[in-house]
Amino acid sequence: MIDFWFDFISPYGYFAAEQIEALAARHGRGVRWHAFHMVAVMREHLDQQQALVALPLKGPYIRHDVRRSARLLGLPYAPGPAPFSSVPAARAFCWLQRHQPAAAVSFARAVFRARHAQAQAPVDTPALLALAESAGADTAALATAMAGDEPKALLQAGTDAAVAAGVWGTPTVGVDGELFWGADRLPQVEQWLARGGW
Amino acid sequence: MIDFWFDFISPYGYFAAEQIEALAARHGRGVRWHAFHMVAVMREHLDQQQALVALPLKGPYIRHDVRRSARLLGLPYAPGPAPFSSVPAARAFCWLQRHQPAAAVSFARAVFRARHAQAQAPVDTPALLALAESAGADTAALATAMAGDEPKALLQAGTDAAVAAGVWGTPTVGVDGELFWGADRLPQVEQWLARGGW
Repeated sequence: MIDFWFDFISPYGYFAAEQIEALAARHGRGVRWHAFHMVAVMREHLDQQQALVALPLKGPYIRHDVRRSARLLGLPYAPGPAPFSSVPAARAFCWLQRHQPAAAVSFARAVFRARHAQAQAPVDTPALLALAESAGADTAALATAMAGDEPKALLQAGTDAAVAAGVWGTPTVGVDGELFWGADRLPQVEQWLARGGW
Repeated sequence: MIDFWFDFISPYGYFAAEQIEALAARHGRGVRWHAFHMVAVMREHLDQQQALVALPLKGPYIRHDVRRSARLLGLPYAPGPAPFSSVPAARAFCWLQRHQPAAAVSFARAVFRARHAQAQAPVDTPALLALAESAGADTAALATAMAGDEPKALLQAGTDAAVAAGVWGTPTVGVDGELFWGADRLPQVEQWLARGGW
């Protein structure tokens, strides 16, 4: 197995989400998906209070690079309106992963595509339930759960576990104890899998 | 021509410096080398007051990734003692580039290797003059210059020019108006040169 940590907020996470299963399968591996709350990690651990895209110089670079990366990968890219909170979607993912695991990864990909390729802002529960339905989830159970505390607790635990594993950015891939940060490191992940490390 | 912006402080700059001339030559290009003061850009423009390697989570990741990257590239890696200021070496480079351009790139590579592959801390003028001599520079003229104001002014101007070009991280490569940040993006730079963009 390999590990894939992500926050729905980043388009680079979307780029990786579109590739990671096929990449792992080429080397006989499966993928464990892990949602975490990137903004919390940035604020609490990296002393970074501003969104990257709000920074001078770095923000314009990232906005340009995201479009260029999408073209290179041949992936559609159409971002939804900002600001966007990935927290409700991440909580829903964590709950599905615990209680309806067969639907969780399809739901994650649907959220990524809605947010980064279909110009949507899946934040409120109806929008998330529609995506969950498209992923084959039991949306009545999810709707009930989203009104309670468990999804929040699961995402918090997932974020704590990510930090404990050394994760600080999204996306991050873990292979045989090695972490690789960034969608642009997937070629190195593939080399690591192909060569058994170096 | 392609542009190569660097600060001697980063081992990723060293990795790129070892590859950039051959990469450009494979596509019939030359390389314009540009020193800039990364720490000043981080503090003044990116609201980043701490060195990356001092951050929790991200610091350990970078230290591990640098060694892994060196192995992948087949490059020697032996960092000099910290803390290290790249400013004197960058000032010397800027002065050589202006007055003894034939020696400047060899000097830059010698500084990168001393710092990141030979466990040195080339900060004081005698150490820099020894590296300049190995690069074929007229070290008497450089020694005189280093006691004056011109090297400082040249690095300041170089940093301002880098920021004006949109550069905020080291290393950064500029190709046909496109910026690519990070030694791990050199494969994309190569693709851009081979395909004429995408």
